Amino acid sequence: MELSTLAFRPLLKLAIEEDVGYADITTLGSVAATATATARVIAKQDLVFCGGPLIQSCFDEIGSPGDVELLFLMKEGQPCKSGTTLVRLKGRARTLLTGERIMLNFLQRLSGISTHVRTYTSRIVHTQTRLIDTRKTNPGWRSLEKYAVFIGGGGNHRHGLFDGVLLKENHIRAAGGITMAVRRVRAGIHHLVRIEVEVTTIEEVREAVEAGAEGLLLDNMSPDQIRQALEVIPSGVFTEASGGITFETIEAYAETGVDFLSVGDLTHGADWVDISMYVDTVG
Amino acid sequence: MELSTLAFRPLLKLAIEEDVGYADITTLGSVAATATATARVIAKQDLVFCGGPLIQSCFDEIGSPGDVELLFLMKEGQPCKSGTTLVRLKGRARTLLTGERIMLNFLQRLSGISTHVRTYTSRIVHTQTRLIDTRKTNPGWRSLEKYAVFIGGGGNHRHGLFDGVLLKENHIRAAGGITMAVRRVRAGIHHLVRIEVEVTTIEEVREAVEAGAEGLLLDNMSPDQIRQALEVIPSGVFTEASGGITFETIEAYAETGVDFLSVGDLTHGADWVDISMYVDTVG
Amino acid sequence: MELSTLAFRPLLKLAIEEDVGYADITTLGSVAATATATARVIAKQDLVFCGGPLIQSCFDEIGSPGDVELLFLMKEGQPCKSGTTLVRLKGRARTLLTGERIMLNFLQRLSGISTHVRTYTSRIVHTQTRLIDTRKTNPGWRSLEKYAVFIGGGGNHRHGLFDGVLLKENHIRAAGGITMAVRRVRAGIHHLVRIEVEVTTIEEVREAVEAGAEGLLLDNMSPDQIRQALEVIPSGVFTEASGGITFETIEAYAETGVDFLSVGDLTHGADWVDISMYVDTVG
Amino acid sequence: MELSTLAFRPLLKLAIEEDVGYADITTLGSVAATATATARVIAKQDLVFCGGPLIQSCFDEIGSPGDVELLFLMKEGQPCKSGTTLVRLKGRARTLLTGERIMLNFLQRLSGISTHVRTYTSRIVHTQTRLIDTRKTNPGWRSLEKYAVFIGGGGNHRHGLFDGVLLKENHIRAAGGITMAVRRVRAGIHHLVRIEVEVTTIEEVREAVEAGAEGLLLDNMSPDQIRQALEVIPSGVFTEASGGITFETIEAYAETGVDFLSVGDLTHGADWVDISMYVDTVG
Amino acid sequence: MELSTLAFRPLLKLAIEEDVGYADITTLGSVAATATATARVIAKQDLVFCGGPLIQSCFDEIGSPGDVELLFLMKEGQPCKSGTTLVRLKGRARTLLTGERIMLNFLQRLSGISTHVRTYTSRIVHTQTRLIDTRKTNPGWRSLEKYAVFIGGGGNHRHGLFDGVLLKENHIRAAGGITMAVRRVRAGIHHLVRIEVEVTTIEEVREAVEAGAEGLLLDNMSPDQIRQALEVIPSGVFTEASGGITFETIEAYAETGVDFLSVGDLTHGADWVDISMYVDTVG
Amino acid sequence: MELSTLAFRPLLKLAIEEDVGYADITTLGSVAATATATARVIAKQDLVFCGGPLIQSCFDEIGSPGDVELLFLMKEGQPCKSGTTLVRLKGRARTLLTGERIMLNFLQRLSGISTHVRTYTSRIVHTQTRLIDTRKTNPGWRSLEKYAVFIGGGGNHRHGLFDGVLLKENHIRAAGGITMAVRRVRAGIHHLVRIEVEVTTIEEVREAVEAGAEGLLLDNMSPDQIRQALEVIPSGVFTEASGGITFETIEAYAETGVDFLSVGDLTHGADWVDISMYVDTVG
Repeated sequence: MELSTLAFRPLLKLAIEEDVGYADITTLGSVAATATATARVIAKQDLVFCGGPLIQSCFDEIGSPGDVELLFLMKEGQPCKSGTTLVRLKGRARTLLTGERIMLNFLQRLSGISTHVRTYTSRIVHTQTRLIDTRKTNPGWRSLEKYAVFIGGGGNHRHGLFDGVLLKENHIRAAGGITMAVRRVRAGIHHLVRIEVEVTTIEEVREAVEAGAEGLLLDNMSPDQIRQALEVIPSGVFTEASGGITFETIEAYAETGVDFLSVGDLTHGADWVDISMYVDTVG
Repeated sequence: MELSTLAFRPLLKLAIEEDVGYADITTLGSVAATATATARVIAKQDLVFCGGPLIQSCFDEIGSPGDVELLFLMKEGQPCKSGTTLVRLKGRARTLLTGERIMLNFLQRLSGISTHVRTYTSRIVHTQTRLIDTRKTNPGWRSLEKYAVFIGGGGNHRHGLFDGVLLKENHIRAAGGITMAVRRVRAGIHHLVRIEVEVTTIEEVREAVEAGAEGLLLDNMSPDQIRQALEVIPSGVFTEASGGITFETIEAYAETGVDFLSVGDLTHGADWVDISMYVDTVG
Repeated sequence: MELSTLAFRPLLKLAIEEDVGYADITTLGSVAATATATARVIAKQDLVFCGGPLIQSCFDEIGSPGDVELLFLMKEGQPCKSGTTLVRLKGRARTLLTGERIMLNFLQRLSGISTHVRTYTSRIVHTQTRLIDTRKTNPGWRSLEKYAVFIGGGGNHRHGLFDGVLLKENHIRAAGGITMAVRRVRAGIHHLVRIEVEVTTIEEVREAVEAGAEGLLLDNMSPDQIRQALEVIPSGVFTEASGGITFETIEAYAETGVDFLSVGDLTHGADWVDISMYVDTVG
Repeated sequence: MELSTLAFRPLLKLAIEEDVGYADITTLGSVAATATATARVIAKQDLVFCGGPLIQSCFDEIGSPGDVELLFLMKEGQPCKSGTTLVRLKGRARTLLTGERIMLNFLQRLSGISTHVRTYTSRIVHTQTRLIDTRKTNPGWRSLEKYAVFIGGGGNHRHGLFDGVLLKENHIRAAGGITMAVRRVRAGIHHLVRIEVEVTTIEEVREAVEAGAEGLLLDNMSPDQIRQALEVIPSGVFTEASGGITFETIEAYAETGVDFLSVGDLTHGADWVDISMYVDTVG
Repeated sequence: MELSTLAFRPLLKLAIEEDVGYADITTLGSVAATATATARVIAKQDLVFCGGPLIQSCFDEIGSPGDVELLFLMKEGQPCKSGTTLVRLKGRARTLLTGERIMLNFLQRLSGISTHVRTYTSRIVHTQTRLIDTRKTNPGWRSLEKYAVFIGGGGNHRHGLFDGVLLKENHIRAAGGITMAVRRVRAGIHHLVRIEVEVTTIEEVREAVEAGAEGLLLDNMSPDQIRQALEVIPSGVFTEASGGITFETIEAYAETGVDFLSVGDLTHGADWVDISMYVDTVG
Repeated sequence: MELSTLAFRPLLKLAIEEDVGYADITTLGSVAATATATARVIAKQDLVFCGGPLIQSCFDEIGSPGDVELLFLMKEGQPCKSGTTLVRLKGRARTLLTGERIMLNFLQRLSGISTHVRTYTSRIVHTQTRLIDTRKTNPGWRSLEKYAVFIGGGGNHRHGLFDGVLLKENHIRAAGGITMAVRRVRAGIHHLVRIEVEVTTIEEVREAVEAGAEGLLLDNMSPDQIRQALEVIPSGVFTEASGGITFETIEAYAETGVDFLSVGDLTHGADWVDISMYVDTVG
């Protein structure tokens, strides 16, 4: 899913408040109000570039709209070699220097996720299985992290608790079993949202299918167990596997033919990549 | 620095909005309004526990104050073995289930940082050098990540651009040299804030000290270069080294006698630790 | 779907700001700070009661939590005869008098919708077809109006543009046809969200089904045309009819066997019902 | 009263949040970022056009300022025949399609009120009596609904509880009678705000006038009773009648010579009018 | 007018954000989380006490509700001798110390205004003239400063631009004269709001009265000129004098028999009074 | 410190909300939407001009960006004679008239502070001592008042409780003495923030210096006592005197050689200066 500006503005404002506060006292003191600068954002390692759409908003919010102009040399999602110039910037020196770290913090985290995801997806391109994210994202970053997964070649699971039903063990217990849970939830939701049920045994698979689940989360099953489950699941019901999926095992899981592999590590396990801003001229 | 509630409330609200949205449609549909539950938060790996003060606010904001009661079995900052129960919870089942993942996302990230920091600090306890964080934090998370560093045994650098002066190369260029930069900044700031100057050579060290810098950031120097720099720096001026500091090299850096080692990896390089919530009874 | 407090708090705050502003100058001037009152909320016409969960929040926000205590005599969704006492209230007179109209404005609109919806649904109870709402709601009122539809016995369509895909004519044109539109959207969304396609002819029905649409919006078709369409639509694909559905025609539409009838009039055509608050004692 | 942008911005933001949420997943998936479109807003029934000043803000907030350009063919408040083109729009296709329903929801409600009001006012143009609204507005919509009443030819009552005093029965009881209530309120308010007192008998009329009320609300009186009351009310005191005023009775009420007729139905009884947006070109 | 909590909450939040920011680093570091304290708020000069209703909210927002308990020894508006204990406080030491200055800043400013106003009003008690404030208040403080004027024995002018009409010279010029201005404004406003017209000559007085102005602002006239004006103003039209009113001249102005004297100095000319908080026990 | 836009936007919004509310009913009624005006802001007394950077934002927020154009004739901080034109304005008449008082309220308060501060500083220019402000500012105005002090030639103390440590008597008591307090605070704060300790006797001076305080607040000492204290304070420790500093005594205090004199009266004792806006043409 592409990134909507509406989705990151509150976090961006929070980021500026916490970092700049009432003023950047170093820059106000040392850089003249009229000074200009030119700069480059550079990849310091091989990476998949992600976060470009944020940069303009970042400087516009810190200074005034138009303070900084951007020239993108790389496209969003493009794999870049270490040393590549990603973006050229020019404009008001104060705004550039005050915003540098906030911008880089966003780019390094987002490109880090996209780069990490791409390493996973490259192992299963020979299959039909799609790698997707989870709700294990840094609080406040849901839209941005899911976007970075998408840019890295992954797919997204539901955005939050409001746009998809996933009945887990505790919901099922509280409702008095899979059948009751599916029936009660179905009565309250709209028809453009599907119900997925978490299952751990073949018996639960059968009960969930019978209850009308539109998808099954095969939780913590081995590739062999998944294959057995897939045999009893009708074709109209989608399947998702989660638990135990690593770089080493992902190929085996994908080759079972399961529709989706959901991996929390896509987001919470991604390291920042190294990106720097170099100022070429200032004064 | 301890955690002030004022510091995390906006991020917590954002986290709930993005995840719960207009409603948790799974829980509303499957769990009765009157159902109660008991649960435990468990460490699934060895870790340093961090994030406890957030938990109550988390459930209070999602439901109503008093929906969920907590019993802490472990203290903030306490190293815990895998399998340890950290917190017991009981109360309204809906609030518990809706808030589970948001709470865990906070705890896993924060305890991940504290655990990571402790691994670093354990290597330099025989020295006087203090390990500190940087501004390389996830946007929106500044207060929380710095708190987790502190809980893990590290120290903090300035909170943001408003409560400390760090003159970097670009500020110095814009101001027309180290001496000018220090003088101009000093004229605008209050006396409870110190000026630190980034230096890369012995000449810059000398100029900065002469200009009245109260601290020096020795950037990208080897332990040997740092030792040489320390010889010419008067005792009243604090010293910070950054760049090239890893698990392998940190001991050598600390043994130079530099006052602070600042390491971005403390925050951006920390993996989440594995923490789960188990529901014991629900209905 | 039940009502989550998170869903109406921003609108409630707006409602208080616009009505009370900096102070209720009549009440502050004429009613002593210590005065108490008892009152009753009464149905002045036959109606379906809706809006109860808002009342406590309403008075808590206007005054202080605990200013007003409620005793509900009727249940949410209960049909009530004219003259029925719905709720008894007692507490701080100022808070009661200042909040009276805001509370009634909410109750009259919401109960109005529930009452209106019930009139529709009572005509199609002998069928399997479900009557649902649309996005034609008063801006700011989406969650509340959809809740009132549900309480009145109707079902909900998607909440907004974020939790369901409905490809209308213009999206299809922009994408270059139904097949392209379905394919492109499918690539970007998660698997818990379904794609519904608006169709007006049998050819479009066929193309949409082939393209993988999970549901069809049969737009502005007569009951006969709908019957013909249903014959070519496979059982796994849900069907929705909209356009031309009135009190007079709804039975004919429902008897076609279509899954859903969506009617904007459920929300935008509902009149307020008459509800008053009587103060029994004050002083 | 004309419409100030300050008066609708919070509701507009709420409207966008509830409908678009984190993204319009249909439009992002099916319409290219660079696509443009032209469209027309059309009256589908005879109506009084109201809401024009909102449209630009609507699209500016959903997309970016300048995404959509407007050409108004009809003026605010102008009566339009069914089929009339009200506005021409052109610009970014995504912004147009995402904002279509939000814009229409505003226009249909506001034009509905203006149209409804005009039907009332046309019956009393031969009198000096002015038809005015009440506080019975949809919460969050106070400024907008009062504006639509004004555009439809009606007048406004006070905006809220802060800019006018209306002493009703309960205030009078709490204060210990009309005289006490008027005196106590007068002591606390400023001199640019008038005091109006609700009265139901000739005795109360006399007491209120003597107490210094600047206006009287003649509540639930018949035209004959109003005539009798007017005989004892001095000319400097304005008079307002409310209760029992319908399309059928309004002429009789107006001909009593009362200054104002306040009718809640102007706002809460108005149906939406039918307005559509047609997209002429897209791609 | 009494103080509504709704009126000061936004300013209080701003006050805490600007002073406490992410944390009170002195108090967090030096005072134990469990420490308690008792304290007294003391008048250090003769003053009229104002601001009491803010104190509880102040500590509740900084810490948690219930952290600090208050015992008021003096009443709001009571004249107090230097040395008087106004309030006793006890509770959480951290919350008390962090909130001390914010609380005092509010009390010193508000009591300063009330004290200042009382000095004015004491000179005109033998007249019927009422002393009132203006819109010359510190931005953000309108409700609070007007409240302090009221507590000090003064009256209030309109709250802002929304709840009263004051036609000044520029409005009159723009409208094409007094008569046009009054007529046009009357057409747009509701009947509970009065129109006051600024006049500087007897001719303008006559024109304004004829045009239907309900009040006249006699601007920058001497007591003698005011007396002449009053002779031609009918009794139903209220009169306000402004300009040139000081401690020395106020008696002469009041004795003209004008209804209101508006004095900007009541708010912008008030000095803070000296109030301190003494901590009796802490630990 | 220069003024960052980020620092005053929330207060500006509050100022507009409280004054304009839902609409400026006088201006909307009397001034045509298309009317334009030209105006001048004039100093009505000798003053130091402060507040210029706020003016554009002020009118942009009240109307739309670009409504009003400014031409500054005087520079920020420039001393101006009575009668000087400070700024010329032209643009939309409605925006100009609605914003006039809000703008003036800001300028009169800020220029009042700058003018007041300059009167103080002019008396100590022959010394090295710097005059600084305190936290005794009007709540909500911290950034603006500190900025006005700076513009008037004064210096700033810490911005708030977050960017500097000042251990006062109560913190010291709670911590168990000066030495403990300094040690405990030092452990929690970062190295770019200094610790200042409030002392009242020579013994406390010695203890604080020994404990490692980087600065001393000499509270309520006479110039002679300060001289004695300075003799025992090492050169690296800065000194601040507060208490008893007035126009009469400031010279004696400054000549002691103390580094800083902090005076609450700079902000809370400043009177507004007289500034008016004259409209030259309107229509």
